Amino acid sequence: MPETGTDPLVFAYITAGSRDEALRIGRTLVEERLAGCVNILDGMTSVYRWNGAVEQAEEAVLIAKTRSSLFDRLTARVRDLHGYDTPCVVELAVGRGNPPYLDWLRTETA
Amino acid sequence: MPETGTDPLVFAYITAGSRDEALRIGRTLVEERLAGCVNILDGMTSVYRWNGAVEQAEEAVLIAKTRSSLFDRLTARVRDLHGYDTPCVVELAVGRGNPPYLDWLRTETA
Amino acid sequence: MPETGTDPLVFAYITAGSRDEALRIGRTLVEERLAGCVNILDGMTSVYRWNGAVEQAEEAVLIAKTRSSLFDRLTARVRDLHGYDTPCVVELAVGRGNPPYLDWLRTETA
Repeated sequence: MPETGTDPLVFAYITAGSRDEALRIGRTLVEERLAGCVNILDGMTSVYRWNGAVEQAEEAVLIAKTRSSLFDRLTARVRDLHGYDTPCVVELAVGRGNPPYLDWLRTETA
Repeated sequence: MPETGTDPLVFAYITAGSRDEALRIGRTLVEERLAGCVNILDGMTSVYRWNGAVEQAEEAVLIAKTRSSLFDRLTARVRDLHGYDTPCVVELAVGRGNPPYLDWLRTETA
Repeated sequence: MPETGTDPLVFAYITAGSRDEALRIGRTLVEERLAGCVNILDGMTSVYRWNGAVEQAEEAVLIAKTRSSLFDRLTARVRDLHGYDTPCVVELAVGRGNPPYLDWLRTETA
């Protein structure tokens, strides 16, 4: 089941300020075929440094499953849609997978 | 701590229709030594296109930690056990790690 | 947006015995600049084999975002801080990302 000769698939790992924001962004990505599927995990706590102080916030994780070739367009779209100036959008490479699922994901992002 | 000369480790990222389904599949994978450990995250919301419409469902995430060489057998087993026709099973490569933990994971999947 | 000529970024995927333990470890990693940001997901169920029996425990996931070059120091620090003898700390490679976010993450871990 190695993926060769086809556009690789990736996860975009995105954080949002709330489940509602993650749902709004995620639905738009699916509607615009920039992702085949998104998974939203609510109840995430983020800890980070901002202006020198350690801050803590309640957020949500949005994982968007897409083609590698769409990642930059997806990132630009998330920046448009997001309430943060500097949203976290990072790429995790996907390797092998359940072949019919990979086919389905490619069809939904074609 | 680079991993060379040994079977690489991977995460299988799987989605299930409920926490109960994720637990049932996950326990079987551990019992059959197809995974050393699984982590189940409940309360995941999935958004995807199906037959042209954007659908939303409550699901659970199941992350199975295993050897790269077991990934295809694990995928086949999840397809047997899963209630969906086309379950999401995808591979995320693991790089370095806490050495005793990596050793433990290899022992539990030998 | 390919990342070349710079220190790559990684996720450290860590599990902890509770949300409180994940918060305590995560805050320390951010305070000591071993991570720019951590994301904590509570309500995770872990299933694993221990001394031959399949066990189940309620845990939390801690994802620490950092530079590749800090991963081994971060792992050593988590081992110091963690209540488990053999904590799960594993590396997931980050590829592309939202460029200002990647820059921010590098600044916070310099």
